[in-house]
Amino acid sequence: MLSAEIIAIGSELLTPEKIDTNSLWLTEKLNDIGIEVMLKTIVGDDGARLEETVRDAMRRSDIVITTGGLGPTEDDITRASAAAAVERELIYHDEIEQHLRERFRVMGREMPEINKRQAFVIDGAEVLPNPNGSAVGMLLDASGKLLAVLPGPPRENQPMFTEHVLPKLKTRAGKVFVKRRLLRVSGKGESAVDEIAAPIYTKYADVQTSILFNKSEVEIHLAARSSDEAKAAQTVDKLADELATALGVAVFSTNGETLEEVVGKMLKDLGHTVAVAESCTGGLIGMRLTEIAGSSQYFIESAVTYSNASKTDRLGVDPYIFKNHGAVSAECAEAMVAGMRDRAKTDHAISVTGIAGPDGGSDEKPVGTVFIGYAGPNGVKSIKFVLPGDRHLIRWRTSQAALDYLRRQLLKIQS
Amino acid sequence: MLSAEIIAIGSELLTPEKIDTNSLWLTEKLNDIGIEVMLKTIVGDDGARLEETVRDAMRRSDIVITTGGLGPTEDDITRASAAAAVERELIYHDEIEQHLRERFRVMGREMPEINKRQAFVIDGAEVLPNPNGSAVGMLLDASGKLLAVLPGPPRENQPMFTEHVLPKLKTRAGKVFVKRRLLRVSGKGESAVDEIAAPIYTKYADVQTSILFNKSEVEIHLAARSSDEAKAAQTVDKLADELATALGVAVFSTNGETLEEVVGKMLKDLGHTVAVAESCTGGLIGMRLTEIAGSSQYFIESAVTYSNASKTDRLGVDPYIFKNHGAVSAECAEAMVAGMRDRAKTDHAISVTGIAGPDGGSDEKPVGTVFIGYAGPNGVKSIKFVLPGDRHLIRWRTSQAALDYLRRQLLKIQS
Repeated sequence: MLSAEIIAIGSELLTPEKIDTNSLWLTEKLNDIGIEVMLKTIVGDDGARLEETVRDAMRRSDIVITTGGLGPTEDDITRASAAAAVERELIYHDEIEQHLRERFRVMGREMPEINKRQAFVIDGAEVLPNPNGSAVGMLLDASGKLLAVLPGPPRENQPMFTEHVLPKLKTRAGKVFVKRRLLRVSGKGESAVDEIAAPIYTKYADVQTSILFNKSEVEIHLAARSSDEAKAAQTVDKLADELATALGVAVFSTNGETLEEVVGKMLKDLGHTVAVAESCTGGLIGMRLTEIAGSSQYFIESAVTYSNASKTDRLGVDPYIFKNHGAVSAECAEAMVAGMRDRAKTDHAISVTGIAGPDGGSDEKPVGTVFIGYAGPNGVKSIKFVLPGDRHLIRWRTSQAALDYLRRQLLKIQS
Repeated sequence: MLSAEIIAIGSELLTPEKIDTNSLWLTEKLNDIGIEVMLKTIVGDDGARLEETVRDAMRRSDIVITTGGLGPTEDDITRASAAAAVERELIYHDEIEQHLRERFRVMGREMPEINKRQAFVIDGAEVLPNPNGSAVGMLLDASGKLLAVLPGPPRENQPMFTEHVLPKLKTRAGKVFVKRRLLRVSGKGESAVDEIAAPIYTKYADVQTSILFNKSEVEIHLAARSSDEAKAAQTVDKLADELATALGVAVFSTNGETLEEVVGKMLKDLGHTVAVAESCTGGLIGMRLTEIAGSSQYFIESAVTYSNASKTDRLGVDPYIFKNHGAVSAECAEAMVAGMRDRAKTDHAISVTGIAGPDGGSDEKPVGTVFIGYAGPNGVKSIKFVLPGDRHLIRWRTSQAALDYLRRQLLKIQS
């Protein structure tokens, strides 16, 4: 298997604010054709370090990809350092300068003389055109190793990589197909999922399985690599099926769909509508449901009744409930959801009321206590959770628990 | 100035899903005491590459920090590779093993024999205790260079770094104080901000200024470094004041507060309340306002009226408006917001109605067309935007425009 290294260039990537995201995209594209990323480096605008980094990378790995540092200013050191690392000259290309001049002319501007720097290319390298910016890329075969020098902005380097670098890498990598599946699981923790999943996926040595916990759900990433496309697909699909069967209703998605997509699709398929009554989530559940294009087909409205008065005025919650059970109670969640469904005249409604913190908790109802209500064709019910995390996480997890509760009710109606 | 390198270890960090976030936190802590990060590397579970990376880093930089790879399994190669890189032995520490055994005993479990690996420490290194996990850290002075070997999970490495590494680095770095300010700007683009800001900040050669665009706002990061604490603070505060004056009302925050924090504080200071009527944002504005702890003091309720019927039933919007102006219109935004304020009996209300896409646009009202309504003590009004981006970004930018519109109305009332 071919190995690759990615080098991201730019001092701004060494500040606390900026992260290199190019390498995630490139890693996926490389993995998809069976090339493994062995090392990633982030270098500032420091010629000596960059030269050393490129030289080391070219020695260790089959493919080296750099991003960034191809601008016209003094800071943009990639051309010179990469050339030095492979011990080649930079050659001036008049046709690049003419092209740059034309580019500026079209924008109604004169090319600054400084941009001439961008007309220099490593001797022997293929020039990669950049329709989205002024920096051309370069692709060099140096003693059997490939060096791709790409600009930094994703909208420049992604099309350039896809069009000019990927086809050559595919040829080198040979016939390798990678088939991926992503299962998403709600209502079970990472170790509980792994306990059920591990005896199954360990039997599939040729599928790379990784289990990640992501805010409020567990993701199972599967990837099978083979020179036989059908075989890769078969293997990974078989494992995905086995895992979905073993984990049962907790698996809400077997192809990477989000929970709001899954619930939306179920509602659309049933031809049903939904309304939401939120308290502690402040609008998050409605926001998630409407993140999906076309959600107006099934999402009618929501009421964010933050104050007790609004719970009474908007949803008809009897003030007796606040006095005797509190606003964070099963009684309140059920009154909210019944009131919402009645007023919105939807097939389904969900409600949440809880304590997101950091204040407002008590011994009896600590921060994280949440009641979720559901109203539908088969009546009204509710469920209680005590969710861990800070305010932000508790609210997110509440929205997840509510959408998952709705999903489980819809499953019963479907079947 | 001292230079540092950060090495993140773990094959999962070389997948398309996982990003190294430890280095951002560490970079900020290092910068704060005047130490510059020159290079960051991400290495998989590959002993030879890790050894080479650590060796190169120790040669180039004054301080090398590794994170991860200290678990008990075969994959966890940091101990051996780091020891080899500095040409030292690994020494078995019985007291660490006893401590680990005790740790497992308290959890009611027997220590697996494999965990013995975690009792080996580089010869001559200081052992850094880990109250939050089983892997101890190490701190080694090798020929005047410092090597800190830390576990991967942030809740383990952050306290360990703060307590055991930072004080030593401070001593080495000498008396360096870094004072930071973060200004946030709404309603102006990155280049418009830079056009006003550049003539000012370029006069402050000793303040590092970086301007970033972040979804729907421009951030101006300022950092001054000095051996004189008061001088660093004075310089950066003076620049922040000059920038805030030049940029005027567009600056909504001069100390990094979010827009929802700023609006919340203004409402709290005024003793006023707010309600929200949302359509295309689906609940996002209410969600953002209630992300702030204590927001129940001023946020009363919101209505997410996604369907036209709910706009009429919940807010009293005359169906005549849908027929003659459309649901996405100034008339509708104003009717929504007036209805919301009347019903919720709040001091202020805001509303949004727009086309988030990808469908639903027309020549007259393209995707991204948004109307924002405001109702308050001085009456009802609205404003139109055409916002760029995909559905997710348009919705976010709509919420930002709405909160900023509210902020500007509150400013008028304050003054």
